[in-house]
Amino acid sequence: MLTKKNMRHKLYLLLSLFFLSNTLFAQDTLKDLTLEHLMPGGNSYIFPENRYGLSWWGDQCVQKEMDNLKLINTKNGKEKVLLTRTEVNQILSQQGVSELTTFYQAQLPWANQNRFYFEQGDEYVLVDWEAKTASILHKTAPEAENNDFNPISKNLAYTVGNNLWVNDRQITDNPEGIVAGQTVHRSEFGIRKGTFWSSKGDLLAFYLKDETMVSQYPLVDITSRVASLENVRYPMAGMESHKVKVGIYNPANQKTVYLNTGDPTNRFFTNISWSPDDKSIYLIEVNRDQNQSKLCRYNSASGELEMVLYEESHPYYVEPQTPIVFLPWNSNQFVLQSQRDGFNHLYLMNAQGEIIKQLTSGHWLVQELVGFNPSRKEIILTATKQSPLQSNILALSVNSGKLREIDNLEGVHSPLLSGSGTYLIDSYSSPNLPRVVDIVNIDKETRINLLKAEDPYKEYKQPHIQVGTIKAADGQTDLYYRLVTPSKLDKDKKYPVIVYVYGGPHAQMINGGWNYGVRGWDIYMANKGYIVFTLDNRGSANRGLEFENCTFRELGIKEGEDQVEGIKFLSTLDYVDTDRIGVHGWSFGGHMTTALMLRYPQIFKVGVSGGAVMNWALYEIMYGERYMDTPQTNPEGYKKTDLTNYANLLEGRLLLIHDDHDTTCVPQHTLSFLKACINARTYPDLFIYPNHAHNVQGRDRVHLYEKITRYFEDFL
Amino acid sequence: MLTKKNMRHKLYLLLSLFFLSNTLFAQDTLKDLTLEHLMPGGNSYIFPENRYGLSWWGDQCVQKEMDNLKLINTKNGKEKVLLTRTEVNQILSQQGVSELTTFYQAQLPWANQNRFYFEQGDEYVLVDWEAKTASILHKTAPEAENNDFNPISKNLAYTVGNNLWVNDRQITDNPEGIVAGQTVHRSEFGIRKGTFWSSKGDLLAFYLKDETMVSQYPLVDITSRVASLENVRYPMAGMESHKVKVGIYNPANQKTVYLNTGDPTNRFFTNISWSPDDKSIYLIEVNRDQNQSKLCRYNSASGELEMVLYEESHPYYVEPQTPIVFLPWNSNQFVLQSQRDGFNHLYLMNAQGEIIKQLTSGHWLVQELVGFNPSRKEIILTATKQSPLQSNILALSVNSGKLREIDNLEGVHSPLLSGSGTYLIDSYSSPNLPRVVDIVNIDKETRINLLKAEDPYKEYKQPHIQVGTIKAADGQTDLYYRLVTPSKLDKDKKYPVIVYVYGGPHAQMINGGWNYGVRGWDIYMANKGYIVFTLDNRGSANRGLEFENCTFRELGIKEGEDQVEGIKFLSTLDYVDTDRIGVHGWSFGGHMTTALMLRYPQIFKVGVSGGAVMNWALYEIMYGERYMDTPQTNPEGYKKTDLTNYANLLEGRLLLIHDDHDTTCVPQHTLSFLKACINARTYPDLFIYPNHAHNVQGRDRVHLYEKITRYFEDFL
Repeated sequence: MLTKKNMRHKLYLLLSLFFLSNTLFAQDTLKDLTLEHLMPGGNSYIFPENRYGLSWWGDQCVQKEMDNLKLINTKNGKEKVLLTRTEVNQILSQQGVSELTTFYQAQLPWANQNRFYFEQGDEYVLVDWEAKTASILHKTAPEAENNDFNPISKNLAYTVGNNLWVNDRQITDNPEGIVAGQTVHRSEFGIRKGTFWSSKGDLLAFYLKDETMVSQYPLVDITSRVASLENVRYPMAGMESHKVKVGIYNPANQKTVYLNTGDPTNRFFTNISWSPDDKSIYLIEVNRDQNQSKLCRYNSASGELEMVLYEESHPYYVEPQTPIVFLPWNSNQFVLQSQRDGFNHLYLMNAQGEIIKQLTSGHWLVQELVGFNPSRKEIILTATKQSPLQSNILALSVNSGKLREIDNLEGVHSPLLSGSGTYLIDSYSSPNLPRVVDIVNIDKETRINLLKAEDPYKEYKQPHIQVGTIKAADGQTDLYYRLVTPSKLDKDKKYPVIVYVYGGPHAQMINGGWNYGVRGWDIYMANKGYIVFTLDNRGSANRGLEFENCTFRELGIKEGEDQVEGIKFLSTLDYVDTDRIGVHGWSFGGHMTTALMLRYPQIFKVGVSGGAVMNWALYEIMYGERYMDTPQTNPEGYKKTDLTNYANLLEGRLLLIHDDHDTTCVPQHTLSFLKACINARTYPDLFIYPNHAHNVQGRDRVHLYEKITRYFEDFL
Repeated sequence: MLTKKNMRHKLYLLLSLFFLSNTLFAQDTLKDLTLEHLMPGGNSYIFPENRYGLSWWGDQCVQKEMDNLKLINTKNGKEKVLLTRTEVNQILSQQGVSELTTFYQAQLPWANQNRFYFEQGDEYVLVDWEAKTASILHKTAPEAENNDFNPISKNLAYTVGNNLWVNDRQITDNPEGIVAGQTVHRSEFGIRKGTFWSSKGDLLAFYLKDETMVSQYPLVDITSRVASLENVRYPMAGMESHKVKVGIYNPANQKTVYLNTGDPTNRFFTNISWSPDDKSIYLIEVNRDQNQSKLCRYNSASGELEMVLYEESHPYYVEPQTPIVFLPWNSNQFVLQSQRDGFNHLYLMNAQGEIIKQLTSGHWLVQELVGFNPSRKEIILTATKQSPLQSNILALSVNSGKLREIDNLEGVHSPLLSGSGTYLIDSYSSPNLPRVVDIVNIDKETRINLLKAEDPYKEYKQPHIQVGTIKAADGQTDLYYRLVTPSKLDKDKKYPVIVYVYGGPHAQMINGGWNYGVRGWDIYMANKGYIVFTLDNRGSANRGLEFENCTFRELGIKEGEDQVEGIKFLSTLDYVDTDRIGVHGWSFGGHMTTALMLRYPQIFKVGVSGGAVMNWALYEIMYGERYMDTPQTNPEGYKKTDLTNYANLLEGRLLLIHDDHDTTCVPQHTLSFLKACINARTYPDLFIYPNHAHNVQGRDRVHLYEKITRYFEDFL
């Protein structure tokens, strides 16, 4: 189990610091925060200041602005104009190339070379500001998508519709239903794209997905003159899935070789990476049951399998999410990430498939392999070593295994490493710090500050935000909660509670970033006199494999039991009105919301369930079957977690919200639950957001949260 | 205008009688009516007793029952068993034909012949109980629909999919999108079917509809494993419409001739009828603008146009809804129905196209031409002559034009005429009579009673139901209202009001039938302490053309002004709480509900709008363009009545309900209004009934009205 003593100790230490108070200002002189302030997309959205356009040009730190490209001295932070837009546009106009509209578009992948490129419209333009020349590198079709430019070879891959293009040439010519160069397997297994340039940029690996056998889910666009159909091929749990191949295209001879992976039926081809010499390509192959993975090397010229380097299996599931990465100083060695010891850690392997050693270990996990510092032979990474709520930067010596702490041991850090790995831009926040941007010299362990953002809410009334732990329903596991309360609590009053819940894998609602990751709506509701409570139950992210996989084959059950522990904790607080407990969540949190309303009607009075999974049989194969197996192999689990079977148990007020273009969790979930309620003569409420996908973003998000607010005001 | 003195006089006289009181029983000993009692589809639905299975076998009155076929003596009502099911099944089993399961299926079109036929499964069976023989007349495909059996020729027409079959032969072989033998023009213009046997049953006229050019509206069925698409070709206002032809199929030579009507683009072919000699077929052709109609005769052998007998036009619209009918005693003369003098009346014409005379006239209208009594040369019809709320039976002498009153001058009558026209089964109700069934001898003007149903609610608490008139917003026109109030009104209390509204053409909410046509839900809500008010505004049915067409090109505006007059009337009643006025309606009534909420937010606090037309541009051509012209020719009218343009004016609580299989008023109406509200940051509520069409019927209707009830309870 996770509750190791040392971790606990650190945790409690941390929590004692985490008690936030925002009552520095006299509350009555403060302004009210509205949803327009608090929601991204709101008319007057307020957010912490940031340094946009900071990036690296080799080891030089550059600041992109609209009109200037500046150099930032990494020793003292002083700025100097490197280039003006006027200068660039003079060059461009002489060459008859369209103007650069902002330096934010400029990309500087070439260290120590006075040139940059930018993408504008359908053109890729290269500017050499020393030679004062400019040229058009590529001109794509206007409808090009998934552009993937390789700065080494200057090759460009992109897709037009379902086909792949490289430079000006169409590479595939497939009918609808066969898709090249795009993400596959519904972007699970860490897959985010469909093209992968080789180390030298001379060869292009790409996905080819045949989904003609996958059932079409019909979505309807009601904004056209006559409502129109938008089909999406959505492979549901237990049904036939798409089939994937990996092609390798060689722009030099315009030939494509497909990897000889054998029958692709019921297999997932994940985490593509290249050997440093481009001769081999690595894949992690996963079976349909997702309980076995294999790291495979193929010959990039012949497409033949060269070797299975590593295999991993687990009685529940494996989940490779990161490609292997070769050491820049040793082309025979690479780093593999694995949860095989219960936490995501790094392993050093060689190209012969031998595990040289486990590089990191302990009851914490590596979150991101940021990059390398070859001169010190260090890996720069982020990890939860300080706290499961934090993301801190560490430098790991590959040889000694020693970890150097690079940051302040607080908060959530997003590092951006320089070309040599000597510097990083460390952008972070912590409970009391909305945003800090530093430049760190990793070698010298020094840092200079570029930005320390003020509290953007400082003139506004703010609630009290507190983080702590309680025990899970197993009586052992520590769970983090966040309690948001009105700034002035009247001791004679009891306050209604809204539980905001997510609860599923891959996500954590509470973190050590600014205000502990509180949401704008939590602040809004607390200011209105509600207590907003969130608990990261078992099954959520950043706590290791066992913490996550204890929910296997019956998603939502243990998670719900933990949420009830949260309610028990709340009931010990004398200012909580336990007769007025509401719950709200989206997606997995929508499932949790509905499940809590149905399984614990004596506790939860009002719920708002958005984009909810109601029946895992209607969810997609890749995510769903990992945790639930198939409806055929786990009929009891599917039955037990199919909320339509409990529609008759609805007692409280439950608002169901779904987006009509939700391709992640299709509208059928909510509508079939609704139908089950109609059959059972129970009475949920419903709302639909037309032309939104999985959650309501943009301007309409204010409407969404006003709608949700009103529902709790009406009924809680 | 309509408010002629004599009509008014009768009206007031009538209304003084119409004041109903249901307080005979001590209210406290009475049981409560639930929605399960009051809704068709409810688990314990209560309705007045009726005599099902009464029909004519020539001039013999027969009562069909499960096990017996009985004769009813038309002089004294005495019953006699004519035939038992045992006897019939003995005959059938001897012939190896499947058993008759109930006499309700038996059809007796052959007067004085001891035989009947019945349809069971895919078989048409003829039974001769005198000869004790039985035979299978037809065996259709199991998926046969739209069956049309002609008892004279014994020919059978039916459709399989989109194609037409006659007897065992497939007549058309068209791809999807071309439909034979089914109703066309979305069943407007009185069209209810697509096959029309000739007078002798030897020739079959049928519609052929090419709708390949009509845009598909996508509906989604969420009850399949993966939600599936159900397209419907829905021709929206101003867009391209389907094209219709009329074919004539001759089973004797298996040839089909199509009428040479010319280019069918933007034309409606309505009201098909045959000449008595089968040599000619009559159509009423209407132009797309629906302001001109032509009665045309075609040669049934050649398909060529013989003559245009009659033309009618109107600056607003014409609306032929009934085929011409030949006099049984004169094959050269027929009866035409027309609103040309402002009310639907009968005209006697000859086959040369001459109007011999207007048969009926006055400020009332003919509702149905029921049939003929050839021996007396009378037409039997129903009409509003007594009152616009009633439907009374009249016998019209074709020669003298004299009208004989056949019924009791009260209520709403549904007559069924015997073979010779001498008798009729008069089934009727009136405000205090739930159901009466009499047999009437038209010649002798005598009647015997078969049924006088008890009040099925007599053991239950019932509200007070009252009907009266107020002036329309024009200050002149009388409008009928119905006021349903709790049985005991507390004089010191003020009661909330719910306006139930329809308001569109072709319908009348208040009539002189049982309880003045009150709805079950009205009773339910009045028993709960609400006042339920309904007003048939200008534009509604049974009041003549000008009353209806004053709403031309801006549907909903005048109708709403009249509803406000209703509210003004209510505000004169000291027991009405004018701060708590709700409104509910479906379809056109959904439009009215939404429009009233938006146009009169100071009056209407809560609305429930079901299956609403929100924007006439999304409604179909045939109904919509009749009243609104096209979006191209009436842009101001469409803009003014498009409720999405007023979404920002929503102040009260408005629940929008739509069925996801609504093919009459597609879901796009409600969803696009919802989107307009989201854009405008206003906050309606929503509910959807999956797998229901235009209104929720069957068991789920109880859920619907419980949902609606709760909404008013929550917010009014």
